[in-house]
Amino acid sequence: MLTLYDFKSSGNGYKVRLLLHQLRLPFIYVETNILKGETQTPQFLEMNPNGKVPLLSLGDGRFLAESNAILLHLAEGTRFLPSDSWQKSKLYEWLFFEQYSHEPNIATPRFWKNYLKVGEYDEEELKRRQLAGRKALAVMEKHLQEQKFFGPQYGIADIALYAYTHKAEEGGQILDDFPAIKDWIDRVKSQPGHVTIEDI
Amino acid sequence: MLTLYDFKSSGNGYKVRLLLHQLRLPFIYVETNILKGETQTPQFLEMNPNGKVPLLSLGDGRFLAESNAILLHLAEGTRFLPSDSWQKSKLYEWLFFEQYSHEPNIATPRFWKNYLKVGEYDEEELKRRQLAGRKALAVMEKHLQEQKFFGPQYGIADIALYAYTHKAEEGGQILDDFPAIKDWIDRVKSQPGHVTIEDI
Repeated sequence: MLTLYDFKSSGNGYKVRLLLHQLRLPFIYVETNILKGETQTPQFLEMNPNGKVPLLSLGDGRFLAESNAILLHLAEGTRFLPSDSWQKSKLYEWLFFEQYSHEPNIATPRFWKNYLKVGEYDEEELKRRQLAGRKALAVMEKHLQEQKFFGPQYGIADIALYAYTHKAEEGGQILDDFPAIKDWIDRVKSQPGHVTIEDI
Repeated sequence: MLTLYDFKSSGNGYKVRLLLHQLRLPFIYVETNILKGETQTPQFLEMNPNGKVPLLSLGDGRFLAESNAILLHLAEGTRFLPSDSWQKSKLYEWLFFEQYSHEPNIATPRFWKNYLKVGEYDEEELKRRQLAGRKALAVMEKHLQEQKFFGPQYGIADIALYAYTHKAEEGGQILDDFPAIKDWIDRVKSQPGHVTIEDI
């Protein structure tokens, strides 16, 4: 049985939960509170030396970290990952875009504003990240003006990008400025087996 | 013919150059000076809307960005990427670790210290990133105390992590604190077809 170590409001964790639901794969959910240091205990670091959730246990002593690596692992051989080599390479491109240009600038400001008090984060750094986040959304908007999904059909690049994009306003972004993204959010929500970030 | 749009001192670009050399794939090199805004021109943004190098042109109108996506694309079917599904998933894990936990904290401080003047970057943010960079190196060190490479043999996860790790001291890290990393750096340098970041 798969076990997912996760923190409920984490978009990175939500990516994995959403795919598990859409693949109809049963899993045990273990809430791991990052705010209480539960990813920094010796027991947790034994499973993931990088001390982060989400973390997937395959139940046989094997563990996999990094949300997008978990998505790639679970999606192998399914309709959520194209088998065509070039389409797969373009999907990798979006997954790395998500972790480098999008997540630190969309998710991190959301985390600071939701969980930290003013003074616990750097206001100047917040502004820099919000500006970079707006650029990342503009890159997505440009793609979505011509394409329905971040791949030949709905798949794990959509899941990876949806997780924090649909909550981007909590980090200070204005989604009304990105109409193609708003339409895409509606398309993602209407996929069979969709669950929200609040569901487990 | 492949064309690589790149900036010579970029570690992300060096990853691709190193793999191209080790695969003995000929390519045209186009220096694209990020300091002069050459990735922000309308012509460049047409090729990569995210405005970043490295960017690989396949020569038939197709372009691929994101260094680690380019590595995965070029390594498919070669000894640099394992064919075993689990080994490949663990390699994805290191590639995402590199882009999220390592590169922003090892490469960005190096860039600031090499190319920006004091006052052009935020000293507090530099310190936060250096501390996070040290944690990323500790995760690598722990792995390398038991394993020779970041995969069953030398491959693209080693290339991805080597690119900035071997220059980490330029960003303020002290590699003498990580003896297993230093040994691994020597093993990477001794691989057939190795080229340095100064080579094109």
